[in-house]
Amino acid sequence: MANKEEFVTQIASRATDFPQWYTDVIMKTDMVDYSDVRGCMVIKPYGYGVWELIQQQMDARFKATGHKNAYFPLFIPESLLMKEAEHVEGFAPEVAWVTMGGTEQLTERLAIRPTSETVIGAMYSRWIQSYRDLPMLLNQWCNVVRWEKSTRPFLRTSEFLWQEGHTAHATGEEAEEETMRMLEVYREFAQNVLAIPVIVGKKSDKEKFAGAVATYTMEAMMQDGKALQMGTSHYLGQNFAKGYDIKYLSREGRLEYCHTTSWGTSTRMIGGIIMVHGDDRGLMLPPRVAPTQLVILPIAQHKEGVLDKARELKRLLAEAGVRVELDDSDNSAGWKFNEWEMKGVPVRLEVGPKDIEKNQVVLVRRDSHEKLFVPMEGLADAVKALLDRVHEGMLARALALREEKTVNAVDFEQLKAGVNGGFVRAMWCGERACEEEIKAKTGASTRCMPLERDKELEHKLGCACVHCGKPAKTMMYFAKAY
Amino acid sequence: MANKEEFVTQIASRATDFPQWYTDVIMKTDMVDYSDVRGCMVIKPYGYGVWELIQQQMDARFKATGHKNAYFPLFIPESLLMKEAEHVEGFAPEVAWVTMGGTEQLTERLAIRPTSETVIGAMYSRWIQSYRDLPMLLNQWCNVVRWEKSTRPFLRTSEFLWQEGHTAHATGEEAEEETMRMLEVYREFAQNVLAIPVIVGKKSDKEKFAGAVATYTMEAMMQDGKALQMGTSHYLGQNFAKGYDIKYLSREGRLEYCHTTSWGTSTRMIGGIIMVHGDDRGLMLPPRVAPTQLVILPIAQHKEGVLDKARELKRLLAEAGVRVELDDSDNSAGWKFNEWEMKGVPVRLEVGPKDIEKNQVVLVRRDSHEKLFVPMEGLADAVKALLDRVHEGMLARALALREEKTVNAVDFEQLKAGVNGGFVRAMWCGERACEEEIKAKTGASTRCMPLERDKELEHKLGCACVHCGKPAKTMMYFAKAY
Repeated sequence: MANKEEFVTQIASRATDFPQWYTDVIMKTDMVDYSDVRGCMVIKPYGYGVWELIQQQMDARFKATGHKNAYFPLFIPESLLMKEAEHVEGFAPEVAWVTMGGTEQLTERLAIRPTSETVIGAMYSRWIQSYRDLPMLLNQWCNVVRWEKSTRPFLRTSEFLWQEGHTAHATGEEAEEETMRMLEVYREFAQNVLAIPVIVGKKSDKEKFAGAVATYTMEAMMQDGKALQMGTSHYLGQNFAKGYDIKYLSREGRLEYCHTTSWGTSTRMIGGIIMVHGDDRGLMLPPRVAPTQLVILPIAQHKEGVLDKARELKRLLAEAGVRVELDDSDNSAGWKFNEWEMKGVPVRLEVGPKDIEKNQVVLVRRDSHEKLFVPMEGLADAVKALLDRVHEGMLARALALREEKTVNAVDFEQLKAGVNGGFVRAMWCGERACEEEIKAKTGASTRCMPLERDKELEHKLGCACVHCGKPAKTMMYFAKAY
Repeated sequence: MANKEEFVTQIASRATDFPQWYTDVIMKTDMVDYSDVRGCMVIKPYGYGVWELIQQQMDARFKATGHKNAYFPLFIPESLLMKEAEHVEGFAPEVAWVTMGGTEQLTERLAIRPTSETVIGAMYSRWIQSYRDLPMLLNQWCNVVRWEKSTRPFLRTSEFLWQEGHTAHATGEEAEEETMRMLEVYREFAQNVLAIPVIVGKKSDKEKFAGAVATYTMEAMMQDGKALQMGTSHYLGQNFAKGYDIKYLSREGRLEYCHTTSWGTSTRMIGGIIMVHGDDRGLMLPPRVAPTQLVILPIAQHKEGVLDKARELKRLLAEAGVRVELDDSDNSAGWKFNEWEMKGVPVRLEVGPKDIEKNQVVLVRRDSHEKLFVPMEGLADAVKALLDRVHEGMLARALALREEKTVNAVDFEQLKAGVNGGFVRAMWCGERACEEEIKAKTGASTRCMPLERDKELEHKLGCACVHCGKPAKTMMYFAKAY
């Protein structure tokens, strides 16, 4: 028990200091480390293992929806970046610039890509000639750089890893369909892989992507009640097609501008996983992205037959496709319990002499601490079913917390109180000035407008803007955000 | 036939103009495109598909040898890069420098990583405390930048994609073992996945990696007789450990410097695949990295039942794990034959009304043009076996060509003649000045010294340096190189 107490004091409690808890967890579980470059993180093997599982499962979804991967240059010539006015204005302040190659001063500065609409747009302009070349459905996995003033590992860093989808279509309707299709891919992925329930909706004009006609988002609630934007899907209309001259010859023989989309998610999702699921003991990883899904802890491992049985179980589970580790180190059982709990491994398997006698093992769930005695026979299937139940349990808990911390506000006082630790649903006038005042007064921003109107709810919320009292145009989610 | 001739004239012949043939092939098969940034390429979906298959199969080998992936920053502060003197000297001339972040001038320039020994060394110095932390076995998949004067897609570009392994060990012996283990992983991969026979050996001091104690390489012969360095594995001794302060407390309680290694392969391998296997009809992709392994061409596809059967075969082969495409476009059969041959798809499947009647299909090998009539029953197994035979056939052909174009030289005239279109084995004094004179006179560089001495061959080659006549120290492969 001494070990356990010593251990627990290493991590701040969520209730007392959530930011410190986050830092403690990511550092002590070897997810990430700070580097010598301001705002850049090192993703350590345990954190990168989560990213690899995210990549695999998301990439399979992209391919199933007809997308292929490609790779575009890291560098964007300044003149190329400048061709879409709104886009430049949005990104220029946070661009890192290369000015020298070797000892030679470059004649034109090169931006390190903050996102690749511009460089991909320039290529699409060459590749797309006729309607037969459409739709063009590409995705890229890469690093991007945004020179951020204040950074936090996974959540906001100067360099991060992400995927960016870029598509071009013959009609606006098809491009809008694509935008919504990928938003749904993201939502389904968040729910079914990350065990994170998300609210999907449309961003306000102020919050939309620089250069987009419309930005759609998935927003998740962290345990401190703040929002994290987990992914966005943009309908770009013909803005980039005009800026980068992406035209096609239609079936009718007319030269038309394409309609384009882009959509992205990043290593930021790992920050979301940590802040949605973790507890005061440390990480709690959703089974489908946990690098280790089950850890075997042999009890009284010096006794004859225990380690042999543990190794046999490891082989059996690995062959069945479970990501399994065996901890046969000479640390105490108590130390191991704490360590692997902190690491967030979804299921712990204990096996000792008594279990072997009874031909059973003990499985302990990380999420509920529930203890199960399970026969050796059929173990792999039992473990897989349990991992699914852990996933469902984590998702349900996160959803319940979000519902508990989401309130309806009919006046500004309710909004102010509500965003102090949660999401607020309220009616809003749609004016940017009003949005900025709300932000200044409460620290909360508009998160998104629901995709479908809920007339019953709107009726409850009234028809006046929660802040300025003018006629409301839409329901809006407000929250403080990362 | 008109189609076919038209087609063939699009690609230069290898014999007449090998560089132009290379450019024609990579452009016409949609492997790659030039970008607006000098020396940077766009890897198009077909080329990137090859890279994805390389990554998957190489990554599995890294994991099987105990390595984990991680991610380190793109940026290296100038002062950090400068800590290992030889390394700086080697890489400084080709570094791209970031000097501005947003509108602010940086106080210290940031190098875009040309390779990551320095930034990883700095982290290892923090992470490694005692012998218990060793060995440290990490790999990174990422982009790197080297500001090259003259570039060619895949072979030499300012930005490229690669993997870089970085390991730290308690003893020099262990580090040397690791260096050789990864060289062998590379060799086996080249042979069994890329169907490329490689010569492995040690680089001369002049050609070794900046900062290494020893560099080992795998060298492949292109069809024009020139060498391509396809991957390198470096034993770094304690050079980087001393530069970056990577120390551990030994079992005996002494503070010691680690011994480190690094090893890398890149998208350059794709250039090797093209130049080893391609022919005047276009690409010839090794089955294990071909994005499409088999293409189904329905014959007389307008006839009843043909397309249905083609679709059924596609489903059947895909389910069996074959990467299969069905070309049911309305292009002529001749056009399709040429197109998919140019794309280098290893096996073509033809199915028409007569075949359906006979319950068979026609399989045509891309490498030998051999035509096989194969029963529908057991087709998937037959296709898989055929893909293996295509692999073996391609490997054997490449090996035969290399042997044909490799000669022994006992005097300088023989060396000069031999490097004009092939590899030369000769005895060498080991002096850098001599090496530089050979390069100046013949355009050929030292490629590698064999790992094991072949005394019989050495006896044939004599005991004097092929160029200067001084006593020879070693056998050396000489060749012109990409």
